[in-house]
Amino acid sequence: MTTATAYAAVDGAKLSSILATLPDVSARLGGKPNDWRVREVGDGNLNLVFIVEGPAGGLVVKQALPYVRLVGESWPLPLERSWYEYNALVEQSRYAPGLTPEIFHFDREQAMIVMEYLSPHIIMRKGLIRGIEYPRFAADIAEFLAQTLFNTSALAGPAADHKRRVKLFASNIELCRITEDLVFTDPYREAPLNRWTSPQLDADKRAFENDSALKVAAQARKYQFLTAAQALIHGDLHTGSIMLTSEDTRVIDPEFSFIGPMGFDVGAVIGNLFIAYCAQEGHEPSPGARDAYRAWILNQVAAVWNGFHDRFLALWRQAKAGEAYVASLIASPQDETAMESERMRFMRTLFEDSLAFGGLKMIRRILGLAHTEDLESIADPDRRAICERKALQIGRALVLRAAAFRDIADVIAAAKILAA
Amino acid sequence: MTTATAYAAVDGAKLSSILATLPDVSARLGGKPNDWRVREVGDGNLNLVFIVEGPAGGLVVKQALPYVRLVGESWPLPLERSWYEYNALVEQSRYAPGLTPEIFHFDREQAMIVMEYLSPHIIMRKGLIRGIEYPRFAADIAEFLAQTLFNTSALAGPAADHKRRVKLFASNIELCRITEDLVFTDPYREAPLNRWTSPQLDADKRAFENDSALKVAAQARKYQFLTAAQALIHGDLHTGSIMLTSEDTRVIDPEFSFIGPMGFDVGAVIGNLFIAYCAQEGHEPSPGARDAYRAWILNQVAAVWNGFHDRFLALWRQAKAGEAYVASLIASPQDETAMESERMRFMRTLFEDSLAFGGLKMIRRILGLAHTEDLESIADPDRRAICERKALQIGRALVLRAAAFRDIADVIAAAKILAA
Repeated sequence: MTTATAYAAVDGAKLSSILATLPDVSARLGGKPNDWRVREVGDGNLNLVFIVEGPAGGLVVKQALPYVRLVGESWPLPLERSWYEYNALVEQSRYAPGLTPEIFHFDREQAMIVMEYLSPHIIMRKGLIRGIEYPRFAADIAEFLAQTLFNTSALAGPAADHKRRVKLFASNIELCRITEDLVFTDPYREAPLNRWTSPQLDADKRAFENDSALKVAAQARKYQFLTAAQALIHGDLHTGSIMLTSEDTRVIDPEFSFIGPMGFDVGAVIGNLFIAYCAQEGHEPSPGARDAYRAWILNQVAAVWNGFHDRFLALWRQAKAGEAYVASLIASPQDETAMESERMRFMRTLFEDSLAFGGLKMIRRILGLAHTEDLESIADPDRRAICERKALQIGRALVLRAAAFRDIADVIAAAKILAA
Repeated sequence: MTTATAYAAVDGAKLSSILATLPDVSARLGGKPNDWRVREVGDGNLNLVFIVEGPAGGLVVKQALPYVRLVGESWPLPLERSWYEYNALVEQSRYAPGLTPEIFHFDREQAMIVMEYLSPHIIMRKGLIRGIEYPRFAADIAEFLAQTLFNTSALAGPAADHKRRVKLFASNIELCRITEDLVFTDPYREAPLNRWTSPQLDADKRAFENDSALKVAAQARKYQFLTAAQALIHGDLHTGSIMLTSEDTRVIDPEFSFIGPMGFDVGAVIGNLFIAYCAQEGHEPSPGARDAYRAWILNQVAAVWNGFHDRFLALWRQAKAGEAYVASLIASPQDETAMESERMRFMRTLFEDSLAFGGLKMIRRILGLAHTEDLESIADPDRRAICERKALQIGRALVLRAAAFRDIADVIAAAKILAA
């Protein structure tokens, strides 16, 4: 069926003609369509991304493509991911206002989201490569994680709301499948799309394929990813999904969102910070030149976890409407002591989950399909492989020793030793 | 909107006229509608149940009512539960053929399931009260549990199938809410619908309301019930949902089904066997007269758990298509050793889950709204209270000491001591 509104990937002219039909959007741009400058800037793996600028202001248009951009039309991908991204952005902005881009328009059929143009924000990963410190990052991301993960869980509200969320996002099957395959499985076997720095890491890749304990631990985490319906998770919260300045932080691109394990988002942040930490050796002009920046990154790991932990607990302690752990049952001082002990047990489990998921996210960025610019931008493969090997060892320790780490300081101390 | 097919609770004449329009069903009954004998026999808490008998044979018709029959029209309940029951019966019969009633017809609008008339089967709970041994029970129920729980999990098949199951049953909100409230919360607070043997158990009820560790443990299990999307569970697998003879076992009434924690079903069976065990003292003509039957019941607890455990593991070891724990990753003897150790960890967790859920199901049957005939049929309240107090202590131990029991024999030994 072909109609006037049937999906079609747009170019600049087509996009302008669509935006011209939207009065609110046109008003934000100002002037006439002829005055608008449209640039396609997508450098991600999946979508078209346009920056549109007019006399009065700019905006961003993200349109899903019916295939994986990184791979090509041979890997089809449903346009409906845009619908889940839109729904996730709406939920996230409800609970973490100011920490996501503002949405101006959504067109489900065109798989198109019109949203705020974040400027002069840059992708955090690029800032980490350049060695830029972001004073608000850790507190903002801790707030984002705590607010979105707590408030979309059964700890915060009615079971019926939770089940409706589960149902809505349960159909985001294909995007979840990408994570299931690329994070938990493919790095540990011979898969056609795997890449690694070769021949430098050939032996490492083989060792990971033969690491029985690690493979099984990865699959146990995959089972958790498939079954732990804890909260609406972003699902791809690496440092490429964070845009920021020194004053402002935004989380973008939640198209992988679904109701999954909370630790997957927390771990994505931590794991990608550790990747950035290991990559500094490939970016510093002389050995040790980035020592202070390395220390800053590790401080962010601690600040994100501790900030998240404290904020999440504070939200939980105040909550009155959660249907899990019904507040009115907790009446006496003894009840409160028992409940607080349960909260500590819950947070400890979440800590271990976060470490293990974070470690798996590190490994897949080095041995799997999708790599990170932190490491890819190190031109000399010998130098890159040294960084990558350290990241692999940290990732492996996070997965296998999650239960043994006392606290986040203990994790950071271990990472320093493994990267030494 | 009123149409010819709009929902209406039926009586015998109306039901016959509906069945007469269904050729396959009419053929099973034989003769003419005038020849059919229709009896309403529902003694459950929620629905109308008719036995229809004709010259050629009989069948059962179960029709949902738009309210909780046990309470009345003041507690509305969606007719759609019949749709989830139908879907669960279809899934269960696929994986556990011969262990559910055969379905002849389903009418979604009338919330009506036409199914096999099981005869001379009786409700197992009534058999347990009479002291009847069922030689096939343990093996059949172990098979039912293993086949349905394994095969509707991500251990057995594609993640996409699992997500479709999650989505379908996520809308069975109101029935899940009954469990959430009545099993995990109400017994531990003053709730208008709670009942208990009073005044004999007044102090026990108060003690449970003030038992901080138990309350918090119950809520932790409620959180698990709300978030652990492991498998299609029956959701109400007590001994009143089992009909059997000495040669045949069937599981009925899965209207509480949804994608939840596997241990909830296993625990329901175990907990209700322990209730039957404690109730024997109220049914035996002289002290000790039911000692052999008590031993039989405890043997069933062990046989159900051990049978389930072994069958579930066997299915898992053979499985090739599960997207959790991808079989092709397990290649070397070392891999197999690590995987087998993971399977043991998984089964140990499932053991503890089953004990804790089973204990909570026992407690709710004594201090909450819905009681069991095992105990209710003990006319003398003093004698009943003695049985109930023992069951409460076993239930409490199952919840709080789940992690401390070595194996099912250890659990049974503890139950004997608590009931002595």
